[in-house]
Amino acid sequence: MLNKNVQTFIACDAEYEDSKIVLFGAGFDGTTSFRPGTRFAPPVIRSESFGIETYSPYQNKDMLDYSYFDSGDLELPFGSVERTIADIKQRSDTILDDGKLPFMIGGEHLVTLGSVKAVKERYDDLHIVHFDAHADLRDEYLGQQLSHACVLRRCHELVGDNHIFQFGIRSGDRDEFVFAGKHTQMHNFSFEGLEETVEKLKGKNVYFTLDLDVLDPSIFPGTGTPEAGGVTFEELRKAVTLVCRSLNIVGCDVNELSPTYDQSGVSTAVACKIIREMLLALS
Amino acid sequence: MLNKNVQTFIACDAEYEDSKIVLFGAGFDGTTSFRPGTRFAPPVIRSESFGIETYSPYQNKDMLDYSYFDSGDLELPFGSVERTIADIKQRSDTILDDGKLPFMIGGEHLVTLGSVKAVKERYDDLHIVHFDAHADLRDEYLGQQLSHACVLRRCHELVGDNHIFQFGIRSGDRDEFVFAGKHTQMHNFSFEGLEETVEKLKGKNVYFTLDLDVLDPSIFPGTGTPEAGGVTFEELRKAVTLVCRSLNIVGCDVNELSPTYDQSGVSTAVACKIIREMLLALS
Amino acid sequence: MLNKNVQTFIACDAEYEDSKIVLFGAGFDGTTSFRPGTRFAPPVIRSESFGIETYSPYQNKDMLDYSYFDSGDLELPFGSVERTIADIKQRSDTILDDGKLPFMIGGEHLVTLGSVKAVKERYDDLHIVHFDAHADLRDEYLGQQLSHACVLRRCHELVGDNHIFQFGIRSGDRDEFVFAGKHTQMHNFSFEGLEETVEKLKGKNVYFTLDLDVLDPSIFPGTGTPEAGGVTFEELRKAVTLVCRSLNIVGCDVNELSPTYDQSGVSTAVACKIIREMLLALS
Amino acid sequence: MLNKNVQTFIACDAEYEDSKIVLFGAGFDGTTSFRPGTRFAPPVIRSESFGIETYSPYQNKDMLDYSYFDSGDLELPFGSVERTIADIKQRSDTILDDGKLPFMIGGEHLVTLGSVKAVKERYDDLHIVHFDAHADLRDEYLGQQLSHACVLRRCHELVGDNHIFQFGIRSGDRDEFVFAGKHTQMHNFSFEGLEETVEKLKGKNVYFTLDLDVLDPSIFPGTGTPEAGGVTFEELRKAVTLVCRSLNIVGCDVNELSPTYDQSGVSTAVACKIIREMLLALS
Amino acid sequence: MLNKNVQTFIACDAEYEDSKIVLFGAGFDGTTSFRPGTRFAPPVIRSESFGIETYSPYQNKDMLDYSYFDSGDLELPFGSVERTIADIKQRSDTILDDGKLPFMIGGEHLVTLGSVKAVKERYDDLHIVHFDAHADLRDEYLGQQLSHACVLRRCHELVGDNHIFQFGIRSGDRDEFVFAGKHTQMHNFSFEGLEETVEKLKGKNVYFTLDLDVLDPSIFPGTGTPEAGGVTFEELRKAVTLVCRSLNIVGCDVNELSPTYDQSGVSTAVACKIIREMLLALS
Amino acid sequence: MLNKNVQTFIACDAEYEDSKIVLFGAGFDGTTSFRPGTRFAPPVIRSESFGIETYSPYQNKDMLDYSYFDSGDLELPFGSVERTIADIKQRSDTILDDGKLPFMIGGEHLVTLGSVKAVKERYDDLHIVHFDAHADLRDEYLGQQLSHACVLRRCHELVGDNHIFQFGIRSGDRDEFVFAGKHTQMHNFSFEGLEETVEKLKGKNVYFTLDLDVLDPSIFPGTGTPEAGGVTFEELRKAVTLVCRSLNIVGCDVNELSPTYDQSGVSTAVACKIIREMLLALS
Repeated sequence: MLNKNVQTFIACDAEYEDSKIVLFGAGFDGTTSFRPGTRFAPPVIRSESFGIETYSPYQNKDMLDYSYFDSGDLELPFGSVERTIADIKQRSDTILDDGKLPFMIGGEHLVTLGSVKAVKERYDDLHIVHFDAHADLRDEYLGQQLSHACVLRRCHELVGDNHIFQFGIRSGDRDEFVFAGKHTQMHNFSFEGLEETVEKLKGKNVYFTLDLDVLDPSIFPGTGTPEAGGVTFEELRKAVTLVCRSLNIVGCDVNELSPTYDQSGVSTAVACKIIREMLLALS
Repeated sequence: MLNKNVQTFIACDAEYEDSKIVLFGAGFDGTTSFRPGTRFAPPVIRSESFGIETYSPYQNKDMLDYSYFDSGDLELPFGSVERTIADIKQRSDTILDDGKLPFMIGGEHLVTLGSVKAVKERYDDLHIVHFDAHADLRDEYLGQQLSHACVLRRCHELVGDNHIFQFGIRSGDRDEFVFAGKHTQMHNFSFEGLEETVEKLKGKNVYFTLDLDVLDPSIFPGTGTPEAGGVTFEELRKAVTLVCRSLNIVGCDVNELSPTYDQSGVSTAVACKIIREMLLALS
Repeated sequence: MLNKNVQTFIACDAEYEDSKIVLFGAGFDGTTSFRPGTRFAPPVIRSESFGIETYSPYQNKDMLDYSYFDSGDLELPFGSVERTIADIKQRSDTILDDGKLPFMIGGEHLVTLGSVKAVKERYDDLHIVHFDAHADLRDEYLGQQLSHACVLRRCHELVGDNHIFQFGIRSGDRDEFVFAGKHTQMHNFSFEGLEETVEKLKGKNVYFTLDLDVLDPSIFPGTGTPEAGGVTFEELRKAVTLVCRSLNIVGCDVNELSPTYDQSGVSTAVACKIIREMLLALS
Repeated sequence: MLNKNVQTFIACDAEYEDSKIVLFGAGFDGTTSFRPGTRFAPPVIRSESFGIETYSPYQNKDMLDYSYFDSGDLELPFGSVERTIADIKQRSDTILDDGKLPFMIGGEHLVTLGSVKAVKERYDDLHIVHFDAHADLRDEYLGQQLSHACVLRRCHELVGDNHIFQFGIRSGDRDEFVFAGKHTQMHNFSFEGLEETVEKLKGKNVYFTLDLDVLDPSIFPGTGTPEAGGVTFEELRKAVTLVCRSLNIVGCDVNELSPTYDQSGVSTAVACKIIREMLLALS
Repeated sequence: MLNKNVQTFIACDAEYEDSKIVLFGAGFDGTTSFRPGTRFAPPVIRSESFGIETYSPYQNKDMLDYSYFDSGDLELPFGSVERTIADIKQRSDTILDDGKLPFMIGGEHLVTLGSVKAVKERYDDLHIVHFDAHADLRDEYLGQQLSHACVLRRCHELVGDNHIFQFGIRSGDRDEFVFAGKHTQMHNFSFEGLEETVEKLKGKNVYFTLDLDVLDPSIFPGTGTPEAGGVTFEELRKAVTLVCRSLNIVGCDVNELSPTYDQSGVSTAVACKIIREMLLALS
Repeated sequence: MLNKNVQTFIACDAEYEDSKIVLFGAGFDGTTSFRPGTRFAPPVIRSESFGIETYSPYQNKDMLDYSYFDSGDLELPFGSVERTIADIKQRSDTILDDGKLPFMIGGEHLVTLGSVKAVKERYDDLHIVHFDAHADLRDEYLGQQLSHACVLRRCHELVGDNHIFQFGIRSGDRDEFVFAGKHTQMHNFSFEGLEETVEKLKGKNVYFTLDLDVLDPSIFPGTGTPEAGGVTFEELRKAVTLVCRSLNIVGCDVNELSPTYDQSGVSTAVACKIIREMLLALS
C-alpha cells in the first residue's frame, strides 16, 4: 500500500506530539501596494528547502537530531484582511495551546499581527524584536489601518511603548522615524546595538519577526519592495542566531519573500538557510 | 518653457471637452486568488501602446481622425474591496455625467462591478455582453461575495434574468453552469450565437465587458488563470468589432491582463490592438 | 492537533483503498540531450493543478464525484538510468498488484519504459497508443540504448510488430521513419486515423503514453524540444478523451513538461487540464 | 592535435567550394525603434539549430545529402547605418561573385537592403517576394530614410513598380497602404494569391525576404514588434517551400528574430525549422 | 472634469517656474555594442520611483520640501547619432537658459556628450567628475568616434587636460589607461582620492556624470556590460552625496540602467534611490 | 573565398602549436540532483567572453600578448557517467601528451574526475587545490558513487591523504566535515590559510579546481545549488591570481556555472573575468 504525498520543510516531518516547534505558512499579500507575490512563498520555501543540507557547519548542529513539525499552509480569503488575521491567530492559538512554538512563514508583513495577537493573549509583558528595511510604523496607508506598512504600529498598540526593538531600518516617511523616536527602540541601517538589546531582554518573553528585506537586495532580490543598503547574509545569520539562541522566543515569523521576483532562486535559498539556522538555534 | 510629462494610450491625448470616449485605469487585483499582477496592466498597456499603429487596415480607420481622452489611473486602496468599487463607480459617474463613454482598463474582473453600478443608475434596462473563459457566476468564493469569481453574479443581481449574454465560457464549477442555464444566456467555448444576440440587442443599452482570457493562452499567456481551449485573435477581433459597431454601448471595460506573466510582451500587444479596434469601432 | 501537510493533484486525495486510479510522479530527465528540466514537472503540476476547476464542462463530469489517489514522487538516482527504470517499474508493479491503474507523470519520455515493463508482465498481448511530436524509434542515441530518443524502440522490443500506434509524429531521422513503415502504425502530423485505430483496439489491453510536445509549441512552449507544426489543444483534448473513454487502458503516462521553459505557466496549466480530462474519461 | 572550435548552423559545415548556398549572419538592430535584440539572432539560431533534425518528413529530404556553408557573422559597426549596409553588400558580393546563393540571417529588416543592392547589380530585372506583418513602406521614420520601417520603400527605389510582392501584411500607417496600392502587389493578412504570384514569377530572378513576424505571435513571440493576427506555422512552412522550390531564387534572408523576447526558445526553434525547410527546398 | 495623465519621477511634479532642477530622459542606446536596453530606462525609472519614499533617513531631508520638475523624455531618432546628440544638447540649452540645472537620465553613456556640450558653452572652465566601471576613453570603437566607449575622450576634447576626474574605473584596453595617465585624473577600482578631489574642485563649475555600472553587478545587474569588482551601494551613496552637496554642480546625468536585464527590479530600485539622494543633496 | 565560422573564448584563437594552454568544454550535468543547466556553460561562456576586455588592469597584462587555444566542447553521452569521464580523460590525455596545460570549463563538478585521472597518470605526487562552497566528499549520493557530490572523495582515492586543500567550504553533511578533519586540509567559509598553503605547495605539481559557487550567490546567482555566505569577487580574484601565479599548475578547471539561472548574465560575466585572470596569471 502506498502513502499520501506529504510535503514539509526539509527535516520537519516528525510527529506533532514530539515537536516543540511547529511551522505553518501564511501566504497572504492582500494589502501589498507595490509588487505582490509573497503569497507564493510558503510552498516554494518548502520545496526548495531540499536544496540545502540539514547540517549547519556554523552551529555544528543537525536538524535530523531534533523534531520539527510542518503543519502546512492556511487557506486565506483574499479580499478580507480581518478574516485573514483571525485565521492566522487561530492557528497560532492552537499551537500555543499545545505548548509549542509557532513559527510562521509569510506572506507579507501584515501576517505578523495575527500571530502577535495570539502570543500577547498568553504573555502579558511581551517584547518584539523586529528586523526590517522598513519602519512599518504608519498609522494608516492608502486609507487602510490593516496594512503591511502599519503592522508594527498595530503591534505597538498591543505591546506598548519601548517593547519593540527595531534593527536595520532604512526606509519610511518622516513621521515614522519621529514616532519611533518616541515609542520604539529603533536602530537604523544595521544591527548595531543588538548585543545590548539581547542582554536587556534575557529572560523576557520575546516575539521575533524577521522581514527578509532587511538583507541587501544583492543577496535578497526576491521581495516586493527591495531597499538598497541592507545588511549582509553573514550579519543576518549571526544576528538571528544570537536572538534565537539567547532569548526566550515565544513565537516568530519570517516573511516578505516574493518568489515572483526571484528568478535565480537565490532569495529562496537564502530564506531556507536562515530558517534552518533559526530552527537549530531555537532547539 | 517645458511641459510636464503626459502619458496616455496612443492617440488618446485630445482635450476632454472634445472626446466622446474617456479611458481610465483600475489596476486592482485584491481578490485575485491564484496569480496576482493585473494591477500593473493599465500603465503597461499605455506605454506599450506606442508599439502599434494608429491606423487599422481591418476597419480602414485611423485613431488620429477621432478624439479620445485618457484620464489616467485610479489610485486604489489595496485591502479594501468596497472602497475600490466605490472609487471606480465615482470615476464612471463623472464621465457619464459629462455625457461621455467610460472605457475602463482593469485590473481583475471585479472592477467591472463599479462601472456597471454607475451605468445601471443611468440606464434602467441595461444589458451586459460578457466575453470570458470563466463563468464568474459563483455566489461566493473563499467566503467572499465581492470576488473576481462572483462578479457576473453580482451584476446579475443588478440587471436581472436574461440580461447577461456570455460567450466563450469554458470553466467554472457545476453550480455556475446550472445557474447560467436558468438566469443568463451562456454560449460555451466560442462566439456561436453572437450574431443573433447582436440582432436582438440592437437599440438597447449595452455594457460590454471583455475578459481577455477568453483568448486561447497561446495568444494571451499573460493572465492570472490561463484556460486552454480559447478563441483565436481573429475570432475575438471580429467579435469585438461587431459588438462595438452594432450596439449602443454605454460603458465598457477590458481586463485581466497580468504583465507579470507576459515576459515576451505578446499579451500586452494583443490587448493594445484589441483596445484600438474597439475604440475605432465605437467611433 | 494539526495534520501533516499533504499535497496532491487537485481532488486526488481519496483513500488508497477507494481509488481505482493511482498517480505517481517520475521526475527523471537524466538522458535528456538538449534542454533538461522535466524533473521538476510532477511537483509543479501538483501545485498548479489548484488553478483549474474539478468540473469539466466538456464531459459534464466532476472529479469530486470519483476517487483518485496521488502517491507522490519517486526519488530517483540521477546518474543511473537502469535503476531509475527499475524504481519506476516497482511502483507500477505495486499499483497493478493492488488492481489499480498506474497513471505516471514524467519526467522525460524514457520513464515510460519502466511502466510498460510492469504492465507487459501482466498483460501478454499489450498494445501501445503513442501521441508525440517525435518518433522516439532510434536504436541508440549518443551511444545510449536507454535514451528518451529510443523509448518506443525499446517498447517495440517488448510488444512486437504492429502493436504500437503513433500519432502526431513530425520529427525524427530518416531511419526512424523507415523503421516505423515496417514495424509500427505511424500517423504523421495529426490524429488522422485515430477513430479507426480506436475501433480496432476495442476490448484489447492498451497502454497510453502521451508526450505533451505533440501539441504545437504555441500552446505548449514548456518542453525540452519544441517542434513547430503540432496539434491544437482542442484536437488533443478530443483525442485523449476518445482514447481514455473507449479503450481498456491498463496503464498510462503524461510526460515531457519542462517547467523551466514555461515562464508564463501556460504549459503547466495545459498539462493539468489534459490530466483532468484523462482522469474523468477513465472513470 | 586538436582542431579549432568551428560553429555552424546544423549540417552547414561542407567545404566552401562544394556549396551552392552560403549562410551569413547580419546581427544589426541599430534602427530598431521599439524593442531591440535581433542583433543576437544569428549566433543563437546557430547553436539552437542542433535541437532540430537534419531530415524533413515534410519534404522527405535530408540536409546531410547536400552541401551548405556557413560563413559566420559580420562584425557590424553599431552607430553607422551606411557602413552596415555596405558591409552586408560586400559579403553578398563575394558570395554572388563565386556563383553561390547568399542566405542572410538578420538582424532587423533593414539588413535586406544591403543584400538586395548586391543582387540587383547582377540581375537587372529583379523581383522581390516579401513575407511580413508590416508594410515597411514608409518614406522616412523618425527622420531616418535608412530605417527598418522604410526598407521595402528603399528596395522599391531599386527594383521599380510592381516588382515587389508582399504577403501577410497587417500593419502600417495609412500612407503605406496607399503607396502599396499604386506601386507594389500587396496581399493583406494571409498568403492568398501566392500560387498565382508564383506562376507569374516562374523563370524570373527573385529575391526572397522573410520577416518572421509574419507568423502569429502565439507561435513567434520572440520579435521586436509582435503583431497579432498572423499566419500559422503550417501556412508559412507551405508558403516558403512553394517559393523556394518553384522560383529562381538568387538571394534570400530570414530576419527579425529577437532572442531577448524568446524566453521559452520556441521562436528560435521555429526559425531553425523554417531555415531548414528553405535550405532543403532550395537544393 | 478630468485631467490628463501626468507621469513624473516621484515628487517631481512642481511647476517649472518654481523648480531649480529639471529632469529629462534620453533613452538612447544606438551605439551600444554588447547588450542594448538602456533606451527603456527613463520611463521605467519614473514608474518604479513610486516604490521608494520621498524622505531620506540618510540626509534627514524630504523631497516634498523642495520643487523639482520632470520634463519627460526626448523622442530620439534611432539610427542617427549626430541628431541624437543635438537633440540632447537642445534640451539642456533650454534648461540652462532658464537658469536651471539639467538632470539627465540615460540611456547609454554617449548621451552625456550632448549635455556636456551645452554646459561647456556656458561655463568655460568646466570640470567633469566621472564615476564608471569603464574608462570610456577610446579614440574610436568599431570604427565610430561617437560611441559610448569614446564619450569621455570626446569630452576631453572639449574640456582639456586634467579637467576630468574618474573614479571606480576597472575596465578598458591598455591604451585607455595609458591615455588616462597623461590626460585625466583616473582613480582605479574605488573612490579613493575622492575627498581630495572634492577639496580641489570646490567653487569650480562641475559636470557630474554617473555610469551606474560603477556599482558591483551584485547590486546592479541590470546594465549592458556588467563588470565584477565594483563599489558597494553604501560607497556610491556616500560618494554621490559628497559630490552633489559640496561642489557647484552645473549639470549632471545618471545612465546605463538597462531594464531588460533587471528582471528582479533591484537595479531600477537602486537607480531611483541614488537619484533621490542626488536630488536631495543638490537642493 | 570565405572561412568557416570559428568560435573561441576571447583571444584564444592562436595556433595549437604555439599555445601552452588549451581550453576545452565539458558541458555535463548528468548527476546534478537539484537544478541542472551547467551543460550550457561552455558555449555561453565563449560567446559572452566578447563582453570583457583582453587587458587586465589588475595584472597589467593583455591576453593579446600570449597564445591560447580553444579546442571546443566534448560531445558527451547523457545517461552514461562512466563514458563521460573517460571522454574527458582522453581530451586531457591528448593535451598533456602534447606538453600543454589542460584548462577545462564544466559542467558540473564531477567532470573534474576525468581530468584529475589524466593528470595523476603523469604526475605521481599530485596535490589538489579546491575552491568550493560544498565539501563534495560524500562516499555516495542517492546511491551513486560517481556524483558531483562525491567528486573530491573520488579524487582523494587517487591522490591520498593530505593532498587536497579545500577553501571556502560552507556546506555538506556532518560526515563530510568529519572525513575532511581526517583526510584533507579543509578551510571553512573563506580563503584564510591560503597564503600558507601556497607557500607549502611551491614547486609541487598542483591541479586547481574552481567551483564558482564558492562565490556568494549575490555575485554568482547562476549556479545549481546557490549557498549564501560565500566569498566576494575581489577575494576570489586575488585567490585565483595567487594560486595560478605562484604554483606549478599542471591542470585546472572552472565549473558549475548554470546559465539557465543567470537571467541577468552577471554570473557568466564573472566567470569570463575569472577565466581571463587565471589565463593571464598562468602565462
